[in-house]
Amino acid sequence: MNEIEARQVILTGDRPTGPLHLGHYVGSVCRRVELQHRHQQFVMIADVQALTDNAEDPSKVRNNVLEVAFDYLAAGIDPEVSTILIQSLIPELAELTIFYMNLVTVARLQRNPTVKEEIKQRGFEVSLPVGFLCYPVSQAADITAFDASLVPVGDDQLPMIEQTREIVRSFNRIYCTEALVEPTALLSKVPRLPGIDGGAKMGKSLGNAIYLGDSADVVRNKVKKMFTDPTHLQVEDPGTVEGNPVFSFLDAFDPDPDRIEARKEHYRRGGLGDGVVKKELLEFLQAELEPIRKRREVYAADPSEMMRILLDGSCAAREIASATLQRVRTALKIDYIGNSGSLSRIGRTNGFRDRQLYT
Amino acid sequence: MNEIEARQVILTGDRPTGPLHLGHYVGSVCRRVELQHRHQQFVMIADVQALTDNAEDPSKVRNNVLEVAFDYLAAGIDPEVSTILIQSLIPELAELTIFYMNLVTVARLQRNPTVKEEIKQRGFEVSLPVGFLCYPVSQAADITAFDASLVPVGDDQLPMIEQTREIVRSFNRIYCTEALVEPTALLSKVPRLPGIDGGAKMGKSLGNAIYLGDSADVVRNKVKKMFTDPTHLQVEDPGTVEGNPVFSFLDAFDPDPDRIEARKEHYRRGGLGDGVVKKELLEFLQAELEPIRKRREVYAADPSEMMRILLDGSCAAREIASATLQRVRTALKIDYIGNSGSLSRIGRTNGFRDRQLYT
Repeated sequence: MNEIEARQVILTGDRPTGPLHLGHYVGSVCRRVELQHRHQQFVMIADVQALTDNAEDPSKVRNNVLEVAFDYLAAGIDPEVSTILIQSLIPELAELTIFYMNLVTVARLQRNPTVKEEIKQRGFEVSLPVGFLCYPVSQAADITAFDASLVPVGDDQLPMIEQTREIVRSFNRIYCTEALVEPTALLSKVPRLPGIDGGAKMGKSLGNAIYLGDSADVVRNKVKKMFTDPTHLQVEDPGTVEGNPVFSFLDAFDPDPDRIEARKEHYRRGGLGDGVVKKELLEFLQAELEPIRKRREVYAADPSEMMRILLDGSCAAREIASATLQRVRTALKIDYIGNSGSLSRIGRTNGFRDRQLYT
Repeated sequence: MNEIEARQVILTGDRPTGPLHLGHYVGSVCRRVELQHRHQQFVMIADVQALTDNAEDPSKVRNNVLEVAFDYLAAGIDPEVSTILIQSLIPELAELTIFYMNLVTVARLQRNPTVKEEIKQRGFEVSLPVGFLCYPVSQAADITAFDASLVPVGDDQLPMIEQTREIVRSFNRIYCTEALVEPTALLSKVPRLPGIDGGAKMGKSLGNAIYLGDSADVVRNKVKKMFTDPTHLQVEDPGTVEGNPVFSFLDAFDPDPDRIEARKEHYRRGGLGDGVVKKELLEFLQAELEPIRKRREVYAADPSEMMRILLDGSCAAREIASATLQRVRTALKIDYIGNSGSLSRIGRTNGFRDRQLYT
């Protein structure tokens, strides 16, 4: 892909609704660790978006903000090169969302295939919170706020990027401006990691996940009870590798393709026991997870340092978002206080009177 | 009404889509001038809301923000007792809107009879901007941000107050809090002023309005060509006062009910010419408008003073809105930085590092 050659701005992130697992790691986190050195990367913990379908359970969101942050740092997202931020600490995102909502019709949002599917999954057909319907608009705010030109996504998220691109084009056309940057999707080439039960997708609610935070013992037990080919009863029996999560995991974690092929061949013709393959897999997993556990311990020893990193990143991100909002305000002709920034700053720098209206 | 006995917080305001006319004056502005001395009154120029159905014409909104502000001050809204603010200068309103959107369903918004009617008026049936559909949620943010307990409205706006009350009750119940104040509608008892063409409603787009900013000459000409009873051809003829805007105007502007009755009686039985009644009406109108013109001249001589008033009011309003948002954030468990306010303030008071990530 040509667009990743030059240094670009990336926005990526997660809804803090659960700790991160190997599915996240393989699907996106790993890639961020790599991309952060070639691009300017913003990693957002999307708590405001998580509230759109967890409005009745804010504690879950709050607790997982910290979980996800620990997972990021433990996995190797480096706050010295990536900017990690908490969505709700950037009020500019709410303002941008409100302005973009005037450029998107209800029908357009209802046609979004990903949102349609998610509405079904959540049983929101009858009672759909308008905040949930609008979350693609809020994502457009996130992406444009940081001038992101590249957004790493799986193909199920392509409709989101398309919605953002439409908003950017409408905005720039209507207001005769180049205030907003039109992003490009960076499609993930990594296949989805199955659950340890052989289910197509690893997920917290499915109870089939190995978490980045799992201890060595827990990982060992999870690999031990991992689903394999149920017809592969004797070591001598020929086995099937398709739909066998042990081999899907090896595809993801063994760096040597030849060794993977040889092993699959052996398993297919018989004579390779599940226990042996699982033992190999376990070694790859522990080797991958051990440095992650080590880093987690370091950060866990000083939670205030992690909070400092999150606030620091959010502060830095807010400056960029604030500049974007200023361009948007200018385009919308509501830049009453010019380029001097926020109202309170105006208040201070202009020796604004601090009236006691409400005594 | 009992609720207006005690000192309360009032939120009121206008969408800046045109200068204010006598319909606004009689229907709401006059009342604000009176209410401002008995209550704590916030008067909002709702530019963000105006953009929900004027997204393609931001200049119109921008120009009318200043027009409406001049109208307020000219009409006697006193910035020393009322807080005049510009909606877009209070980012907290956007944040509150986003959070409230999770508590309101799309179906509920679509059932709002006032919004339904307005969608029809604007030809939005096929292509409805989601920002317009959501403006009742944004109004709930406006009302609750300032802890308004009383909202003066005409009966067509009652569904808006009901929507706000629902949001407040949901929020306070779900988050076990008393963070939000449930407002009450203060129904306007004043009948609607007709247009000078006899149309039921005075409106800018209808071309039948007398503006607060009209000069004495313009008002004289508008009264002269005012619609009356078309069957009242000779002075001696009996005339009809019902649906005759000259008499509706006299109802609104002549303070003496007995005199009004006597005049109507005379007109009905014949012998009272339109010219005579219009001359009387003109005197009342000019008497009402003359001090308004005088005050406008004073403010027009120093536009920077008006801008100062708007920024000053918005600053003061923002402090209240910010306190409300803090309570909302606490209820939503996203108060990562405690009660110390904004991220940038945290940044400063904690000796936050100012990282140069983006050089």
